[in-house]
Amino acid sequence: MPLASKTAEWKDLTEHVHAMKNTHMKNQFAEDAERFSKYNVRLTGDYSFDVMLDYSKNKVNDETMKKLFALAKARGVETHRDKMFKGDKINTTEGKAVLHTALREKSPRKEVADVKAKMKAFVLKVRKGEWVGSTGKKITDVINIGIGGSHGGPEMVNNALKNQGGSITIHTVSNVDGAHLARVLGRTKGAESCLFIITSRNMSTTETVLNASTSKDWCKRHMKKEFDVAKHFVAVTNNNTTASEFGIPADNCFEFWDNVPGRFSIWGSVGLSVAINIGWGNWEQFLEGGNNMDNHFKNAPLEENMPMIMGLLGCWYRNFLKHSTHAILCYDEALSKFSHYYQQVDMESSGKHVTMEGEEVDYETGHILWGETGTNGQHAFHQLLHQGTEIVPADFVCFAKCIQDEEFIPKRHHQVLLSNCLAQTEVLMKGRTPQDVKEAEPDCRGDLLKHKTYQGDRPTNTLIFRKLTPYALGNLMALYEHKVFVQGAIWGINSFDRFGVDLGMANADTIEPLFDENTTEYGDRDSSTVGLIRYIKELQVFNPFA
Amino acid sequence: MPLASKTAEWKDLTEHVHAMKNTHMKNQFAEDAERFSKYNVRLTGDYSFDVMLDYSKNKVNDETMKKLFALAKARGVETHRDKMFKGDKINTTEGKAVLHTALREKSPRKEVADVKAKMKAFVLKVRKGEWVGSTGKKITDVINIGIGGSHGGPEMVNNALKNQGGSITIHTVSNVDGAHLARVLGRTKGAESCLFIITSRNMSTTETVLNASTSKDWCKRHMKKEFDVAKHFVAVTNNNTTASEFGIPADNCFEFWDNVPGRFSIWGSVGLSVAINIGWGNWEQFLEGGNNMDNHFKNAPLEENMPMIMGLLGCWYRNFLKHSTHAILCYDEALSKFSHYYQQVDMESSGKHVTMEGEEVDYETGHILWGETGTNGQHAFHQLLHQGTEIVPADFVCFAKCIQDEEFIPKRHHQVLLSNCLAQTEVLMKGRTPQDVKEAEPDCRGDLLKHKTYQGDRPTNTLIFRKLTPYALGNLMALYEHKVFVQGAIWGINSFDRFGVDLGMANADTIEPLFDENTTEYGDRDSSTVGLIRYIKELQVFNPFA
Repeated sequence: MPLASKTAEWKDLTEHVHAMKNTHMKNQFAEDAERFSKYNVRLTGDYSFDVMLDYSKNKVNDETMKKLFALAKARGVETHRDKMFKGDKINTTEGKAVLHTALREKSPRKEVADVKAKMKAFVLKVRKGEWVGSTGKKITDVINIGIGGSHGGPEMVNNALKNQGGSITIHTVSNVDGAHLARVLGRTKGAESCLFIITSRNMSTTETVLNASTSKDWCKRHMKKEFDVAKHFVAVTNNNTTASEFGIPADNCFEFWDNVPGRFSIWGSVGLSVAINIGWGNWEQFLEGGNNMDNHFKNAPLEENMPMIMGLLGCWYRNFLKHSTHAILCYDEALSKFSHYYQQVDMESSGKHVTMEGEEVDYETGHILWGETGTNGQHAFHQLLHQGTEIVPADFVCFAKCIQDEEFIPKRHHQVLLSNCLAQTEVLMKGRTPQDVKEAEPDCRGDLLKHKTYQGDRPTNTLIFRKLTPYALGNLMALYEHKVFVQGAIWGINSFDRFGVDLGMANADTIEPLFDENTTEYGDRDSSTVGLIRYIKELQVFNPFA
Repeated sequence: MPLASKTAEWKDLTEHVHAMKNTHMKNQFAEDAERFSKYNVRLTGDYSFDVMLDYSKNKVNDETMKKLFALAKARGVETHRDKMFKGDKINTTEGKAVLHTALREKSPRKEVADVKAKMKAFVLKVRKGEWVGSTGKKITDVINIGIGGSHGGPEMVNNALKNQGGSITIHTVSNVDGAHLARVLGRTKGAESCLFIITSRNMSTTETVLNASTSKDWCKRHMKKEFDVAKHFVAVTNNNTTASEFGIPADNCFEFWDNVPGRFSIWGSVGLSVAINIGWGNWEQFLEGGNNMDNHFKNAPLEENMPMIMGLLGCWYRNFLKHSTHAILCYDEALSKFSHYYQQVDMESSGKHVTMEGEEVDYETGHILWGETGTNGQHAFHQLLHQGTEIVPADFVCFAKCIQDEEFIPKRHHQVLLSNCLAQTEVLMKGRTPQDVKEAEPDCRGDLLKHKTYQGDRPTNTLIFRKLTPYALGNLMALYEHKVFVQGAIWGINSFDRFGVDLGMANADTIEPLFDENTTEYGDRDSSTVGLIRYIKELQVFNPFA
């Protein structure tokens, strides 16, 4: 496939930018009463699920959308999508299929169903208190040890849905920094009632191996001779041999399917801690929610297809209007980890400089993806969104109902939250002229008028769901996964490998021995790296506070 | 002051970009053995404090630095700095001085010393268990209710230093989302032993007022007639009248100094929860650490001044090399909230489109500031940092010693952590050519060579401290505060106001009543805002899962 920039549709959009630069969204709204009803998509599902994507507050008109859909056609996005669902090896550099969607099918294939059945039996046993530790205690704390995709999904979903049931506390440890493990273990009810889930495809990730081994030693310290590894450790892996060497029998191993990249793996055995946390019924609903979005992505026409629209708008801003970042602002404190989680899904998939065929791209790929929950972000960085010089296209995500329904929380909390969400997108779109300021504040000092002016014309999507249920969260996550897919297909890159991660890990392995106090030769490394190693060693030797 | 872009020094730098585009950092290192020793600054302080800024892995040469220092001179950054320390009203739009540095002076002026004395007495009382709730119980949980600057600092510092002492658990609630308050209150040991700190300059911020009022009602529910507001609520505010109406007597009010913008306020009474958490001695050391950096910023020559250098490099990348984002990657899990916290300090200060004089800028101000802890980020978004098309200048922050020194954590955790930090900056600088790949992997498939290539030449700073003590954290935070100051002075903007936040809040107030079920008139709002309000109301009415 040629570079996207070589297509007529791409060049057409490049031209179209000039026309769009002279528009302002507030005029587009004034001129077209139908703008909202034209630019939105609604999707429903089981359990009264309901969601709307409003994309009317984007810097587009009918022509822009037509040209973007034409680009999708020219790049064969739909064909590529169908290949993914069919199980073609679209991860060409690694020769693999990409089948996270198969994990959430209603009637999954046998290899998926088998793992699910094994997970279910285990989850029920742990939740019912039938799984006991070496000294006979029920499990009170489950600690997922993993990093990257083996961490981000479990952490985010456990945090989001934590009030869905279960009396067991879930923790996640990812960082090799001893502060992470020490602090988490300090929060548990003690080694005797801890269950560790070692999540690592190959059981070879340095961080995970080290954290697992230190955790095992910690258990031994506390339970001494009574300690039985198999009663406190299970593994999510496809390397049962190493797991067994560690002391985890095959019965405690849950297969980490090779056709699923880490960052898309939460839907299978990597979600084990989530299933324990929310219970099996809720876990199934989580998968069903993802499956509902899969069906929408597969079947809805381009023009009414949420992931297609969001992905195309992503390219529009990245490649044509040249905005390098994209913010996700969830107006829900339960989603405080969502933008962190999605950072990996998006940036690890899209941060590529060559196409599938190995050709250097001559256009931008990937956004810097960032965000915070609202209203927190309003009191932090929205100043820049409203009055800064950099345009940040943003998705505002909210829920009509609050996930917490404690009686003592007045309804007003949620109405204020939603009012703020809508007020932000309204202001970003409309802005405020000096004339507006004068009308609102007749006594405003003349020299402050410009300081109180907002340019407006800043693009946002709004996604509104009924409520943050497991089903809704599954749906939301699948939506963003597919958005990444669409962008990758337009750019012609492989969204599913990650060769940019390997070299740093390899170099770390060669730096580590240089910290040995007896080492004085540093090879041909640059003066900065050597200088820093020396400085660290100097600081480590003397320290009255150690 | 004219626009920065009108100065000869600015134009000179614009020209200089062309020369620099043809360099690669790895060649600069190869050609100059002194590069590391030339481009670093070391600073020491009390309690064996030691820090180094290595800026040799930046896309600069001697000429670049000379031109940047010349720009700083031309913009009068040093003079502006001196005005800030002297207490001149440099926040011109609001007619205020900017005196967060005065809060950390060793012998503070009377108004500061008085508040400190009041804080100290209160902190000792709470920590000793002498402050008791309505039913006679000692305090077990302190909940800071505030948002923006009244939240970010306390949350980050409490999280970073939480193992420094004290048996009381600190919580923070910021979001108006009821999920935030409900979840935090659910984690406390119960209303009888809770102490709430209401942190709000004017006691009028909607989020804070609502969370405070719901918390008071929650206490009433649990303690009924025994409940005495004054025993469970204190305020950090300069509005004692409203505090008193709420039930908080003047004795329980700690002054929120008007000469300190919220995002710089952690150093005074806003840090009350921190002082309770870490103890008064540690709190004093935290202030001393900040003061050490203030003295460095005030006294070190431009060329050896950390905040000056970091601020100038920020402008170099933002305005001349056109990189719109900046990442802070702390290789320390205790600093997991640092980039979030600093997002406000930086983006709310620098996201401005007019100069102090109200003139529209014709250059970029502010970066999108983002980040994560390492090594977590490596397994999430470093793919894009290494192989993406967008250059992200980044600060790597690490500590020679681990903050946690539990005996059961092997030393290797920390050495691996540091090795990874150094390996990342090494790889970002050097990159990897197809030839390098062939040498390392002779059997590599030819079509994969490009996929395994890294361009390198990507800029980073490295900051290494001895250990994450209160003193070191104070120092680090003051460093970044002053970096923001330097950038603002170059751009000629007012870094201390935030007019871009007001309009959204005002519009939210007018949207809220529209959610009333009897409202059917929506005024002249745009079709999107009205359509979304209607949709939300539809979803709120019917919900079998509510």
